[in-house]
Amino acid sequence: MSEAAVLRLPDQAPLRDLAVELFDTVRTRTFDGTGVTRECYDEGENVAMAIYRELAERNGLKTRFDPAANMIITLPGDDPGKPCLLLASHADSVPQGGNFDGAAGVAAALLTMVRLAREGARPACPVRAMVLRGEESAFYGRANIGSRLLFGTLDRKDLAAKRRGTGRTLGETLTAAGIDVEAVGRGDKLIDVPVRAYLELHIEQGPVMVARKFPTAVVTGIRGNLRHRSIMCRGEAGHSGTVPRWLRRDAVFAVSDLLMRLDEHWNRLLERGLDLVITTGVIGTDPELHALSRIPGEVVFSFEVRSQSYETLEAFYELFRSECRAVSDLRHVKFEFDDRVYTEPAKMDDGIVKKLTTLSERLGLPNETIASGAGHDAAVFSNAGIPSGMIFVRNANGSHNPNEAMDIEDFLKGLDLMYAFAVEGP
Amino acid sequence: MSEAAVLRLPDQAPLRDLAVELFDTVRTRTFDGTGVTRECYDEGENVAMAIYRELAERNGLKTRFDPAANMIITLPGDDPGKPCLLLASHADSVPQGGNFDGAAGVAAALLTMVRLAREGARPACPVRAMVLRGEESAFYGRANIGSRLLFGTLDRKDLAAKRRGTGRTLGETLTAAGIDVEAVGRGDKLIDVPVRAYLELHIEQGPVMVARKFPTAVVTGIRGNLRHRSIMCRGEAGHSGTVPRWLRRDAVFAVSDLLMRLDEHWNRLLERGLDLVITTGVIGTDPELHALSRIPGEVVFSFEVRSQSYETLEAFYELFRSECRAVSDLRHVKFEFDDRVYTEPAKMDDGIVKKLTTLSERLGLPNETIASGAGHDAAVFSNAGIPSGMIFVRNANGSHNPNEAMDIEDFLKGLDLMYAFAVEGP
Repeated sequence: MSEAAVLRLPDQAPLRDLAVELFDTVRTRTFDGTGVTRECYDEGENVAMAIYRELAERNGLKTRFDPAANMIITLPGDDPGKPCLLLASHADSVPQGGNFDGAAGVAAALLTMVRLAREGARPACPVRAMVLRGEESAFYGRANIGSRLLFGTLDRKDLAAKRRGTGRTLGETLTAAGIDVEAVGRGDKLIDVPVRAYLELHIEQGPVMVARKFPTAVVTGIRGNLRHRSIMCRGEAGHSGTVPRWLRRDAVFAVSDLLMRLDEHWNRLLERGLDLVITTGVIGTDPELHALSRIPGEVVFSFEVRSQSYETLEAFYELFRSECRAVSDLRHVKFEFDDRVYTEPAKMDDGIVKKLTTLSERLGLPNETIASGAGHDAAVFSNAGIPSGMIFVRNANGSHNPNEAMDIEDFLKGLDLMYAFAVEGP
Repeated sequence: MSEAAVLRLPDQAPLRDLAVELFDTVRTRTFDGTGVTRECYDEGENVAMAIYRELAERNGLKTRFDPAANMIITLPGDDPGKPCLLLASHADSVPQGGNFDGAAGVAAALLTMVRLAREGARPACPVRAMVLRGEESAFYGRANIGSRLLFGTLDRKDLAAKRRGTGRTLGETLTAAGIDVEAVGRGDKLIDVPVRAYLELHIEQGPVMVARKFPTAVVTGIRGNLRHRSIMCRGEAGHSGTVPRWLRRDAVFAVSDLLMRLDEHWNRLLERGLDLVITTGVIGTDPELHALSRIPGEVVFSFEVRSQSYETLEAFYELFRSECRAVSDLRHVKFEFDDRVYTEPAKMDDGIVKKLTTLSERLGLPNETIASGAGHDAAVFSNAGIPSGMIFVRNANGSHNPNEAMDIEDFLKGLDLMYAFAVEGP
């Protein structure tokens, strides 16, 4: 990791130019030949952190690292005892990732601080920025490490998780980054900044805002999910020519029937305004057993339902199990379920959502809300009881790939919204 | 192959005892440790042929082999120039097969001849039996070799087909069996028996007769089929949490939708009395690409429709393609089809079906008809223009496996029906 100066623009360059330079520099310095790789607590993330630190300090802001090795950025004269509005996002990326996932949010937080400093704004509530580490933490199969360290929700099992490839444990990695893993193992909270509210800007990782032509939107919540990795539908195999319809126990027709019933419920629940997506990403007959002319006696499939609402998740799951029973009866098959896995949804704070939509309208931006399908550190803050909000910026081609495409004009609109919120206060 | 006597019962033993001894002997002599293996033009089939020949000759019948190496069995005093009712089935089996597929039909033909001889019956039309070879011919991936040789429908490509394992060509095998493959290659018909009508008894290979408690039934036709081995449904992959329903192009939901539409058509067409079965025996997302939390962008599946009627096959296929178009429009996917493969259905002769059902009623057997889902030599005779019929005998557990289970009492009922038909004439 080089600490040498990498930014060339003069201190008083326009925010737009600073933003362009920042995105270009972090991309160039963390390019892996295909996309960007900013491994957490390792070279890529450290390089990005150093660039953010340099920009902050060249623009008169103060920086320091907290006990979880996240970077805190403050205005000169900040009173550290006062609860703040925390602007944050993460410095790391997935391997061969895109340049904007995380970086857009960090840039927005940083440039909001720069603008507050330049304009001598006096927000009602102190504003601080945080550059989080290890949100993706793809190499350890654990998400939101940097934010979970703050709230003591990493446990010893997480610390024992081994890095893909090297086998180094997360505990060893955190120790090398100067973090007290004994404290982490005890569940101590490492946060040392009093936080009144949390705000994160992020690129949208889905196609909605492109399709609906929203440069910015306000996030209402982060979807949780209920999942089965592998459900077996067991019917009875048979000769495709000799078994009539009334004697069949066709597993593929049974699962198709189930999915179409769920699709119909999904459609109706959307009409009633509920937040819901359902997916069967994996399906397959057994290559050892299946044949063109054999009635499929078995098929394995995955099931996932996502929603911002715990109640919707549970209600839809109940519907799913009830339709499995109905299909079992009708088509003489059996469904065998593996363990159900639950990931908690996170609601964004109603007051913050309202304030952000009102400010959007005032700024001539769409007064629109959207759900986040992917997870974010905002969910960790929200589930720790801190009122939280998120701003989404339009982005094409999804995320976690080198084709992420955020327009700088859209980013600047999101930055305006964040600034307006920071001045007004939560 | 041993030509030594293997049957021990006296010549005038009851037909029931002859049947039991025959089934036991062919099973014991062709047992492979798991099931029976009677490879065509090879040891297993030759052993079975020798047993059939011995039983025929010990019971005063004449035997000879025709130019296709099938065995012809006649009553003493048969006038070879007169067109006959031909009773037939096949001597071969699949590897590790069951004892009754083919053998039940051969035993019925043989024992009908024995009974005609014993009772000195004088049927209006001469009756002959034929023990066909190579109906399964599983080792060469070509079916109905023994009957296709009779009608000149094997071509040079068939003759070049290589045996699984050894690589010996079918042509070489036929030559070794004394068959003139030059004539076969020219498309010469090797049949040397004038045939007025064809009748075959066979075990049912599906579950219908067990379910409906029919010891015997009359076959109305042999289903043909239209198939695609591999159809690709192409949608668009995406993050399962971030893409709402209205922007999805989910390939698994699309194929499920298609199958449920076809299922509904199937149901309605059955209500209208059409003969139809449809199967998707193979389905799968790509293990290299799929994931629990990824909207499936691709799924591959097979499609097969079977019917006794060419018109029904074509009509349903048209319906299938039309529903593919409808699903494409609705769900924004594309279907990509490999070659369509067609296997001709075969209709059993209406007059023969009527006579067999009438005789069934007279004998106190079910006056019931059934479609054959699997192929039979009867289809080759029928498609060669010879009026043909089939009698099915109840059998549990399907066929082509060692668990075939035909009750000897059911077999004797089928034998009664065949005998009554032979006496009365086609």
